[in-house]
Amino acid sequence: MSESFMKNTTSRRAFLRGSAAAAVAAGAGAGAAKAAEPDPLITEVQDWAAGFGDGVDATPYGLPIRFEDDVIRRNVEWLTADTISSINFTPIHALDGTITPQGCAFERHHSGAIELRKEDYRLMINGMVETPLVFTYEDLTRFPRENHVYFCECAANTGMEWAGAQLNGAQFTHGMIHNMEYTGVPLRTILEEAGYSTDGKWVYVEGADASSNGRSIPMEKALDDVLVAFKANGEALRKEHGYPVRLVVPGWEGNMWVKWLRRVEVMDAPVESREETSKYTDTLADGTSRKWTWEMDAKSVVTAPSPQSPITHGPGPLVITGLAWSGRGAITRVDVSKDGGKTWETARLAKPGETRALTRFYLDTEWDGGEMLLQSRAMDDTGYVQPTKAQLREVRGENSIYHNNCIQTWWVRETGEAENVEVS
Amino acid sequence: MSESFMKNTTSRRAFLRGSAAAAVAAGAGAGAAKAAEPDPLITEVQDWAAGFGDGVDATPYGLPIRFEDDVIRRNVEWLTADTISSINFTPIHALDGTITPQGCAFERHHSGAIELRKEDYRLMINGMVETPLVFTYEDLTRFPRENHVYFCECAANTGMEWAGAQLNGAQFTHGMIHNMEYTGVPLRTILEEAGYSTDGKWVYVEGADASSNGRSIPMEKALDDVLVAFKANGEALRKEHGYPVRLVVPGWEGNMWVKWLRRVEVMDAPVESREETSKYTDTLADGTSRKWTWEMDAKSVVTAPSPQSPITHGPGPLVITGLAWSGRGAITRVDVSKDGGKTWETARLAKPGETRALTRFYLDTEWDGGEMLLQSRAMDDTGYVQPTKAQLREVRGENSIYHNNCIQTWWVRETGEAENVEVS
Repeated sequence: MSESFMKNTTSRRAFLRGSAAAAVAAGAGAGAAKAAEPDPLITEVQDWAAGFGDGVDATPYGLPIRFEDDVIRRNVEWLTADTISSINFTPIHALDGTITPQGCAFERHHSGAIELRKEDYRLMINGMVETPLVFTYEDLTRFPRENHVYFCECAANTGMEWAGAQLNGAQFTHGMIHNMEYTGVPLRTILEEAGYSTDGKWVYVEGADASSNGRSIPMEKALDDVLVAFKANGEALRKEHGYPVRLVVPGWEGNMWVKWLRRVEVMDAPVESREETSKYTDTLADGTSRKWTWEMDAKSVVTAPSPQSPITHGPGPLVITGLAWSGRGAITRVDVSKDGGKTWETARLAKPGETRALTRFYLDTEWDGGEMLLQSRAMDDTGYVQPTKAQLREVRGENSIYHNNCIQTWWVRETGEAENVEVS
Repeated sequence: MSESFMKNTTSRRAFLRGSAAAAVAAGAGAGAAKAAEPDPLITEVQDWAAGFGDGVDATPYGLPIRFEDDVIRRNVEWLTADTISSINFTPIHALDGTITPQGCAFERHHSGAIELRKEDYRLMINGMVETPLVFTYEDLTRFPRENHVYFCECAANTGMEWAGAQLNGAQFTHGMIHNMEYTGVPLRTILEEAGYSTDGKWVYVEGADASSNGRSIPMEKALDDVLVAFKANGEALRKEHGYPVRLVVPGWEGNMWVKWLRRVEVMDAPVESREETSKYTDTLADGTSRKWTWEMDAKSVVTAPSPQSPITHGPGPLVITGLAWSGRGAITRVDVSKDGGKTWETARLAKPGETRALTRFYLDTEWDGGEMLLQSRAMDDTGYVQPTKAQLREVRGENSIYHNNCIQTWWVRETGEAENVEVS
């Protein structure tokens, strides 16, 4: 390199230089790298550059490359008696950004994922309405539609962690969540079309699968931001996400997002169905139950480093990243602790938090190579602060299954490996 | 239904009632539909509700349901001599919202899609830098990273339409475009790390495939918003989109978004490589060529109704929808014409336009059942207005291939079918 331009070199942080990134041997220039011991990756024509690749007709609909075949939904066999009434988990430890691709977005079924053609699809709206109506799929596409990105979190997400640290990976502790761009018609529009009675205080929504998974939703929410959705991330819903039509109930527990939506009944009282009494109520410390806990409180988790995404490099620059969300509004701040909650640093939000959507956070830091007790703590625009596990147990006891939004701890060892632990 | 609540019925638009949506026969209530001729879809237990569906272990990584198997990338055989140096098209006629799933996002290769492991990946930065460097994939993940949604449009999108209406479908006329949420490191960060010379006015970027597809980018752009990206829509880039690392050059023609990025050289002049001289220059009416036409001008297209997405219902409510974008900034307004540009109505933007990202627009209208000459016209925040084909030809002639951003016309017939036409 000539002296002339070195004098004009811009100032910089020399972030990785001298640590991880390899400086090319002196004399290196355009296509003329000549190190003492030539690196075949630099000096030879690599296999992948020596021939042609696949043509544009190879994959009409593409899948991830085979080297990423571990980035998949996973289920936990012991969790339920049968996989048709079970759940799988989004591989959040391996994702970045905020959008969840449909192909790896978690599923939860009550009687399995059914196959229902658009042509056969019908949506009935009945009960306390002026004119009960039945819509075809095409009918729905004729109403003004909207686009919104929302997270969908199962009420049971992190539910296995109430009694102690159970599952070793962010995918399993926090992966009952996905975040997609939905296209659909406001439920309000459909209710207005049928002429809902103002005496109607609730809607009862059910799906076309065998479970029907009926849930009662207060009319106030039904008229607010609920969508009758038919696209996610631009394309048709996947079979396992309710093709051709599902309900989107922003910020509220995932089981209310009824898939294969077939009926909306306007009622003056809730149904108190199986799925909202025997399930999805919270048993408190004193043995009593609280019900109608629809909104998902503010929550966050460090996705990397984490048990399935260990640190594989030495000390020096480290990006700590994770997700934060709130069913009550937008995330305004996320703090990260490396010492189990003794001290906190405010993370950088990739974008300003959006209402009821996932927010990505980053802490760009230096790792000294020592152990860490990694935590994250989310705050939303209602002023709510994500609680510690101890704070949550004080109010809720240890008998709950649902609505565990406590701070998660990963113990990162000197090796870079991480483990799910509790700190007192 | 009882009289009591009918009196309290809310006012509504009766949007579809009496036209498409079927009113349930009198007496219909919750689960008690009794029409004169019972509709089996309403009164019987449907097949899909009579048994169980698939369990959560059925599809670790999901694909679209088989009923949507026409929503795929398609290529045009006569376009190039070989599919390894060709392009395919995003099925934009069948998508909604703004995000393009990776699985159906268009591909353009110069020597085919190569398979390159993360472990083998190297990125060299050399030329007018203080310290030439070679980064591994892991090195890149240690720099502070960003998330942004950007469109990527091939310079040749709509290129077959210069001489006249050629291809019958929005997928083929406008489908060389996709829009994804990228995660990556600013190129600026990498340049600073190597200590780029302020005498360096250009960077030359090349890929690891056999073509190398080298392109020169002015330093001003390289330091602005260019990303060295490794995730799209949350997950790893697909093989066909440059796994594991591609360049993202927001708003600029797609061929500069070098895939399998292997080298960035800081230079004092552009290289004038094959891919920026014999290709990607515009031949004007007088036979001279203009080069360095990097930015994609404001453009829009109605995606439905369109030739591949005809109107399948009768007169009445109709949603006209499409996409708009600008390489120079954000879309501020889209107008829609039903009469070939004589009169215009301003469409509704699903969200305020975002810089260098796709914007979805809707016109919620009434179709009288007659013929339409559908057009859309985009405006961006620089004040630019998408031109007519005649206006564009006046300046550019008919010899160009690239950068055709003129207003598109679909002739919609009384049958609802649509065709690609030109209007004078």
